[in-house]
Amino acid sequence: MEKQRLSVKSGIADYIDWLAQFGVSADGGVTRLLYTKEWMDAQLAVKAEMSAFGLDARFDDVGNVFGRLQGTQSPDDVILAGSHIDTVINGGKYDGAYGVLAAMLALKQLKETYGAPKKTLEAVSLCEEEGSRFPMTYWGSGNMMGALSLKHAEVPRDGSGVSLQEAMHDNGFGRGVYPSAHRTDINAFIEIHIEQGQTLEMSGRDLGVVTSIVGQRRYLITLEGECNHAGTTSMKWRKDPLAASSRMIHELLLRAEEQPDELRLTCGKMTVEPNMANVIPGRVQFSIDIRHQHQRVLEHFHEEMTAVINGICDEKGIHAMIDEYMRIEPVPMDETLSAKALETAAENGISCEEMVSGAGHDAQMIGRSCPACMLFVPSRGGISHSPEEFTSARQLEIGVRTLTHLLYKLAY
Amino acid sequence: MEKQRLSVKSGIADYIDWLAQFGVSADGGVTRLLYTKEWMDAQLAVKAEMSAFGLDARFDDVGNVFGRLQGTQSPDDVILAGSHIDTVINGGKYDGAYGVLAAMLALKQLKETYGAPKKTLEAVSLCEEEGSRFPMTYWGSGNMMGALSLKHAEVPRDGSGVSLQEAMHDNGFGRGVYPSAHRTDINAFIEIHIEQGQTLEMSGRDLGVVTSIVGQRRYLITLEGECNHAGTTSMKWRKDPLAASSRMIHELLLRAEEQPDELRLTCGKMTVEPNMANVIPGRVQFSIDIRHQHQRVLEHFHEEMTAVINGICDEKGIHAMIDEYMRIEPVPMDETLSAKALETAAENGISCEEMVSGAGHDAQMIGRSCPACMLFVPSRGGISHSPEEFTSARQLEIGVRTLTHLLYKLAY
Repeated sequence: MEKQRLSVKSGIADYIDWLAQFGVSADGGVTRLLYTKEWMDAQLAVKAEMSAFGLDARFDDVGNVFGRLQGTQSPDDVILAGSHIDTVINGGKYDGAYGVLAAMLALKQLKETYGAPKKTLEAVSLCEEEGSRFPMTYWGSGNMMGALSLKHAEVPRDGSGVSLQEAMHDNGFGRGVYPSAHRTDINAFIEIHIEQGQTLEMSGRDLGVVTSIVGQRRYLITLEGECNHAGTTSMKWRKDPLAASSRMIHELLLRAEEQPDELRLTCGKMTVEPNMANVIPGRVQFSIDIRHQHQRVLEHFHEEMTAVINGICDEKGIHAMIDEYMRIEPVPMDETLSAKALETAAENGISCEEMVSGAGHDAQMIGRSCPACMLFVPSRGGISHSPEEFTSARQLEIGVRTLTHLLYKLAY
Repeated sequence: MEKQRLSVKSGIADYIDWLAQFGVSADGGVTRLLYTKEWMDAQLAVKAEMSAFGLDARFDDVGNVFGRLQGTQSPDDVILAGSHIDTVINGGKYDGAYGVLAAMLALKQLKETYGAPKKTLEAVSLCEEEGSRFPMTYWGSGNMMGALSLKHAEVPRDGSGVSLQEAMHDNGFGRGVYPSAHRTDINAFIEIHIEQGQTLEMSGRDLGVVTSIVGQRRYLITLEGECNHAGTTSMKWRKDPLAASSRMIHELLLRAEEQPDELRLTCGKMTVEPNMANVIPGRVQFSIDIRHQHQRVLEHFHEEMTAVINGICDEKGIHAMIDEYMRIEPVPMDETLSAKALETAAENGISCEEMVSGAGHDAQMIGRSCPACMLFVPSRGGISHSPEEFTSARQLEIGVRTLTHLLYKLAY
């Protein structure tokens, strides 16, 4: 068990390195997919460490791990802090892990300094957020909030054909041995996470308070034109779906710039048929991903995008199919909690700004039915989901300090 | 040998069907790749038919087949007509074959009607033009004109690893058994071909006289940006090569429209990395194919294209590599021959127009060092290189009639 204990773990950066041992790769990346050995070893280590911190540690029936500091005055008012333990394939050591460890360290320090809180404090290591093994995300927080249940484990299968249910059962979960994952006693959720973008790095501030997690729509657009000879077909009579898609993407990016705040538009995927240099393509498919914090902006842009695509297709005699295959509504964070977080940062002299999260997080799932708040610390180069992921020890500590003070403000 | 003779072959359309038997596929397409059995059977059948027409038929050392009608006054002034016998994979039955058969039928009729010409007339079935089996084009006309020689057969290999030389040897060519392919006695070359475009179909005319075969430049453009998270990366800091390529292609198409006459620009190929809907691509490659009849327009557009690509890349912090991997100069057809072709059409009441060929043809290889002329007949829907290729019997006959009259004008 040498691997699972560190002789001297003084600060958060040491704990990050300690947890990264579970699932570490040769290049320093981390792979902890849901219900694998690396994942289970990590959850067991987290649970043991919670106990060592003096927290009441337990699993729930999907494998979330909680460390509890019982409240003296209103024990059923639970203030929860944490994040997820799973990673993408060869991801970084900060994503998810930082939020889990920061919550544990905050509770440890609060207990050691102030003893038992008035309201109950819990740290959580959620079992799954990334959707890297099974085609399903937020398995941990979704079950906790009642948005998902055990029956949703029957269908999804991993790349080897193993069902989510089988993998869960193999680890001893989903059989009723542990308490149900569904919680109705959580009154606030606070997640601290690396930014995964460059906003803080560019502004030079140490902390971000997330006002909203963006909504997202994802489209697959198929254009069918007329495959033809590049040399003999006059420009006048072409029905060229790649010429059309280029014009569309360019036009949509210009329209995106005109939206209030910042609408993020990405075309990340494109396939061309037959994809030969001397043949006018017959068919092009491309993706459009749009994200914004306001539902009405997404709604408006949806209409605008449809008009741009259909307008160009009508003009050129091209057939368009627009398939919206993903729609996630924006989730605003709780204003009261966010205001308290900003206040806490100000009181502690921490440079701080409000920002929007362009990526999904557990706080998004939880924030739909419970007041939630997110804190961001900077990510060097905005890099995440990569062994290159990095946040300095100083910046990690600032986050833990803010979280500790905020939890004190809420629970003591 | 039932297959190789047709009981009654009355017109050109019957001969087209007859030759299509060699290499026919289930859906009516034709595949005759250089030095395959189907190809050899077809060349032997053509040679036999030439002899049956009263022409002096022979192979040369690369497998071109000639049918000769010796001139009485200047036998070393050769007027050559024909096209190629090979096809693309599952191509149509008209491309190439029509020019070979039309020349044979023209010579047959001239001999039967007028006897021996003053200058020598030859029909040719060139062995290869398409580059469908080996990565080399114009093997037949290139050897004939001395632009290619037997040593060029050593390197190119087909998909199975067979070299052009081995395949040639297996068919008895390239060993000195037949006369050398190189000719210095050709004074004029006339090729009749299906248009492969829609110019004639749209204008409703029956014949095209080609003034020029376009020059062509082909580029592979590689853009290297910065792969990043679609949700967390601000639009301001993106180095998105797919956004850049869309803008470039759109801009280049607008610039192409501004060129004199018609510059044809095609982006037919695009690859995106990593090609995921939620990831800003890190790298995009795309092809640009430009064709025009004037060298100076291609030269000018090359400069303009380079400026557009580099301008956008400089603005966005993207690295561009522009690789011009193909450059074929435009080849003007012989003005005197073309004038005679127009005159012949007018004398015979055939609706005719001058046009540019956007595709390459043997007349392009031959026209570099010898007066050459091309006649086009309409292609239904502009379709070629497909089993759907079609020209009506009436239109095919009009072409043969014009060719016959033109050859009479030149040789008698």
